[in-house]
Amino acid sequence: MTDNIMQYFAERATVRAYDPSRPVGDELIARLLHLAAQAPNTGNMQLYSVIVTREPERLKALAPCHFNQPAIAGAKAALTFCLDFNRFNRWCAESGCTPGMDNLQGFTWGVIDTAIFAQQFVTLAELEGLGTCYLGTTTYNAPDIARLLELPKGVVPVVTVTVGWPLERPEVTRRLPDEAFIHFERYADPAEVSPLYAAQEALEANRRFVAENSKANLAQVFAEVRYPRDANEQFSRLYRDFIAAGGINI
Amino acid sequence: MTDNIMQYFAERATVRAYDPSRPVGDELIARLLHLAAQAPNTGNMQLYSVIVTREPERLKALAPCHFNQPAIAGAKAALTFCLDFNRFNRWCAESGCTPGMDNLQGFTWGVIDTAIFAQQFVTLAELEGLGTCYLGTTTYNAPDIARLLELPKGVVPVVTVTVGWPLERPEVTRRLPDEAFIHFERYADPAEVSPLYAAQEALEANRRFVAENSKANLAQVFAEVRYPRDANEQFSRLYRDFIAAGGINI
Repeated sequence: MTDNIMQYFAERATVRAYDPSRPVGDELIARLLHLAAQAPNTGNMQLYSVIVTREPERLKALAPCHFNQPAIAGAKAALTFCLDFNRFNRWCAESGCTPGMDNLQGFTWGVIDTAIFAQQFVTLAELEGLGTCYLGTTTYNAPDIARLLELPKGVVPVVTVTVGWPLERPEVTRRLPDEAFIHFERYADPAEVSPLYAAQEALEANRRFVAENSKANLAQVFAEVRYPRDANEQFSRLYRDFIAAGGINI
Repeated sequence: MTDNIMQYFAERATVRAYDPSRPVGDELIARLLHLAAQAPNTGNMQLYSVIVTREPERLKALAPCHFNQPAIAGAKAALTFCLDFNRFNRWCAESGCTPGMDNLQGFTWGVIDTAIFAQQFVTLAELEGLGTCYLGTTTYNAPDIARLLELPKGVVPVVTVTVGWPLERPEVTRRLPDEAFIHFERYADPAEVSPLYAAQEALEANRRFVAENSKANLAQVFAEVRYPRDANEQFSRLYRDFIAAGGINI
């Protein structure tokens, strides 16, 4: 691996602000997606599809599904990566057999394959100089997204990636120390985990984040403001119902 | 993006046979995992952990969990990538708040983040010249894997990646034509999907595969031999019970 390539992986960062005057061509997106599909997938079934939104009116219609986050409001394209059982199920029907993907195993493989495909696209796009941002809101508002993108039954939105030419060069985000998530042979569970988060808690941006939300610490911001239980449970019901309506019983 | 890098993405292939005499050092694995963690993740919570198995006796114990596939039998290391709520939940408890990840939203984010982290590792490892292979069997035998790796409650195996120095240079696997999975603006659902699979059905290896299994076509091999409904449902129950025992109710 060359130093340049290693530097890309070490210093990559999510980009949420894009050059409004510089378009991202369909051919470029299609070429990167074509390459991304060479990423591994379960049994070469390719249980995924991607819907590329780039018409300004359609991007505008999609933005509220993602709570009008700046990344989608200014994006040149939004790629909604979906688990896709529709194509596989139809292939089986046309071939005189009954598929058996409509369960937790199928769902999990589909989510894994979709995420791997999306991440391979992100790596390729960033190596090409594009800025990208994942929108985690995709699993919140899957029914509305499915309606806008005209997804058939059995196609489930998993992640969205916005793209554009970067207007910013964001700082690299600090991750947990390696010992927090890399274990050799056995899972190492320390007596206390808080020290693993100490460097993140000490960051100026995170201290401000805690103060602005009138919380005592960073964990409380995550658990009570950003990802509170009641919202998570409400959106879980919505996602589960949508998945079940698509014929998948997890 | 240089031509060399693009060529890697276009021609990468899964490697299942590894040089038995050439070890893969802990430092190399740790360095690649460290870089892989710069991949995007939900809210910078890093809801994942990886357990690296490289002691021969422990690899041998892990192999039956993956039905003794050749890739793990000859691997220098097997990396089990897990969704990890244990660390996050403990951090919240130590910080005086209650986490809310034990639901379908949390599970889906965890699977997505784990898959993205694993795929970033795979890309880095392959760029370094290593061969890798995903083992989809991880979601089948999660309880046994968790016992061997001493995973605490709330840590769920998602994918396993085997690594070693390649003994083979496998052919690039043919994917579906782009129009099967890339859609612009709206999901395009053709009148018949079978033509999308025609090139794969025509491959000599797949024709042999169909004949060996006494099936009429490739879809039947997938639906009736490789991923039959009854096995998928049985393993779904096992995985769901394991996830629920970890306190996660999807």
